[in-house]
Amino acid sequence: MSSTEISPLAPAASPSLPEIAGVRLATAQAGIRYKNRTDVLYVALAEGTEVAGVFTRSRCPSAPVDWCRDALKAGKGARALVVNSGNANAFTGLKGREAVSLTAEIAGQAAGCAPEAVMIASTGVIGEPLDARKFEGVLADCAARAEGGAEAWTRAATAIMTTDTFPKLATRRAAIDGVPVTINGIAKGAGMIAPDMATMLSFAFTDAALPQDVLQELLSAGTKTSFNCVTVDGDTSTSDTLLLFATGAAGNAAVTRADDPRLSDFRAALDDLLIELAQLVARDGEGANKLVTVEVEGAESDASAHRIAMSIANSPLVKTAVAGEDANWGRVVMAVGKAGEPADRDRLAIWFGDVRVAVQGARDPDYSEEAASAVMRRPEITVRVELGLGQGRARVWTCDLTKAYVAINGDYRS
Amino acid sequence: MSSTEISPLAPAASPSLPEIAGVRLATAQAGIRYKNRTDVLYVALAEGTEVAGVFTRSRCPSAPVDWCRDALKAGKGARALVVNSGNANAFTGLKGREAVSLTAEIAGQAAGCAPEAVMIASTGVIGEPLDARKFEGVLADCAARAEGGAEAWTRAATAIMTTDTFPKLATRRAAIDGVPVTINGIAKGAGMIAPDMATMLSFAFTDAALPQDVLQELLSAGTKTSFNCVTVDGDTSTSDTLLLFATGAAGNAAVTRADDPRLSDFRAALDDLLIELAQLVARDGEGANKLVTVEVEGAESDASAHRIAMSIANSPLVKTAVAGEDANWGRVVMAVGKAGEPADRDRLAIWFGDVRVAVQGARDPDYSEEAASAVMRRPEITVRVELGLGQGRARVWTCDLTKAYVAINGDYRS
Repeated sequence: MSSTEISPLAPAASPSLPEIAGVRLATAQAGIRYKNRTDVLYVALAEGTEVAGVFTRSRCPSAPVDWCRDALKAGKGARALVVNSGNANAFTGLKGREAVSLTAEIAGQAAGCAPEAVMIASTGVIGEPLDARKFEGVLADCAARAEGGAEAWTRAATAIMTTDTFPKLATRRAAIDGVPVTINGIAKGAGMIAPDMATMLSFAFTDAALPQDVLQELLSAGTKTSFNCVTVDGDTSTSDTLLLFATGAAGNAAVTRADDPRLSDFRAALDDLLIELAQLVARDGEGANKLVTVEVEGAESDASAHRIAMSIANSPLVKTAVAGEDANWGRVVMAVGKAGEPADRDRLAIWFGDVRVAVQGARDPDYSEEAASAVMRRPEITVRVELGLGQGRARVWTCDLTKAYVAINGDYRS
Repeated sequence: MSSTEISPLAPAASPSLPEIAGVRLATAQAGIRYKNRTDVLYVALAEGTEVAGVFTRSRCPSAPVDWCRDALKAGKGARALVVNSGNANAFTGLKGREAVSLTAEIAGQAAGCAPEAVMIASTGVIGEPLDARKFEGVLADCAARAEGGAEAWTRAATAIMTTDTFPKLATRRAAIDGVPVTINGIAKGAGMIAPDMATMLSFAFTDAALPQDVLQELLSAGTKTSFNCVTVDGDTSTSDTLLLFATGAAGNAAVTRADDPRLSDFRAALDDLLIELAQLVARDGEGANKLVTVEVEGAESDASAHRIAMSIANSPLVKTAVAGEDANWGRVVMAVGKAGEPADRDRLAIWFGDVRVAVQGARDPDYSEEAASAVMRRPEITVRVELGLGQGRARVWTCDLTKAYVAINGDYRS
């Protein structure tokens, strides 16, 4: 699969994103690594913008991840976001720390803010020093050009792509205590490409007025049912970053607690937007031909259900079976068994789509291979497992494992 | 890769196994699933044979695994071993339990022993009922024909193959308190094949005289540095079984504790044999072109080092990079980071073979891509990670992830 072929699982059309008061965007060609394509996104954020973030759990995080964590702790909000593709600035030691500092300084000058109010994310090669001097002049120019229209959003989502085959955008509207607010989000992520590409990045923006701690609580909760439920190959990047910015321009009433009932509509809209963005990442999984939803029910707890669902979604044998359009439920049994979570073989039931293939620890006596095969030929497949132990449930998304995945990640050299 | 092509990583020659007093073997065509090939191994064991076993940690174990666990608890030793390929008798419910009972009954009649002294292992399709009546007559005939010569061992290792491309045999000699003893071992395992094949099986036999508890302790310890250190795709079978039989015919002095210094030579020989068998499994990994040894040093503990090593060995991105002969150490950093174990990015050092590619959390300034690429072109590659935190170390084996793996596990239907 070359980068000019769009994933067969891409949505028919990308949404046209509305303006978010207080958010303006611009992209540029800084020549970080790629030629003849944009590789820098600059986002100007109005004064008073609050920000929350969740990051990779990797013990070897990239320099920008370290920077953002520190900036969030400083709690000074955000006035600018800089994202580059082509170089992850990960595993770059002291030089990497110097590169993010210089990037924040250049962006701070462009935005008229302290460096600590600049959020930074990078995606691309690991281990290559990033020459941040390439941002000189470029970011100031971006700041001058930045605008808020639909095309600017699409250009933004395109500039941060690496092996992605389509830009990923989503939008939602909600009301907080009767005041309408908007949430826009963009994401990138597909897996990896030659050599060393990684990283899932996503950025969401709203005009809602919400303090940092509330924003953080909403984002952390929403991540659990969205980005933490998507896997392409089980390989966690050094750079995964999800940031949520709130400009406050909507002028809704002040809310001080995430569990304030006036936030229920906003929370639902945010959760839904994050799920859409996460699904878009699975739809663009490297080499993917099938979108797989794994649902686990009846586990001892939600956490246990999640671990079992991820064990299924990460199993190379389940994923190659899906690629081969085989209703191979024996491999699902295997993946449940290896998860290490409470499971009673003799209570297990498994469905592909609406077809129950196994029940009470054995093949369903009424199982029709023809019906199951028909399910497997669809581009979107749900695998459901009922454990029969408790009330725990989880839902995760993945894609199939194809020769194209191996080609994308192994063929670039030999 | 069809089953007639032998793995490029297969040893140049299979060893010729010596006789073990008290062990006789025979194979047969029971027509379990395959045509025109042997699919049953019967091993006759002399009276007084002790047995120890380790099994899959799957929460959905096969019926034979349940049977062996119970038989070991009964502690009556072993007089026969029956292994079939073609059907794993896993996830077969009540019918599966009845099938192992009937198998043990038929084998017990052939061996002149109680059913509880029959050990059983099965490999092949998951979820298909196994018709144990096919063993009727076959096992009695095997018992009559069983013999102990080198050819019988090779035929035994061949009968238990599924997607394996070569039979796996190993042998060691040791002395216990001056008395010479022999250990023979066979193994099967490559990954999976159409549809639902699984299972790593290994059986070791010795003429040493050792009580069950000592045997179990030695086997459990040996497993930690051998079979628990090998991974092809990270997918744990429902049927993994490793059994060690000791006939006692060597007549060595009685030993009652596994830490008896008189057992040090035997222990070393057993550990070495298990490592050789485990490596043979990695060498026959589905689609494998490269044998990869992952060494982790300087971890906080051996257990931590093991988890980091397995994170590297199971990473699809590391494994596709190896397939592509790319010294992609960024992906090794990623895999260290995602293991969730203590690691300090800025102390990490990474080697491919003898070439240090990264040090102190960044690319080695003296790194030669040419030298690293030369390492990657070899059929056997060592990836070494030094964490710089403590004394913990681990060594595991895996293979590369190639398009042939996807083809073997996904192409059989579509």
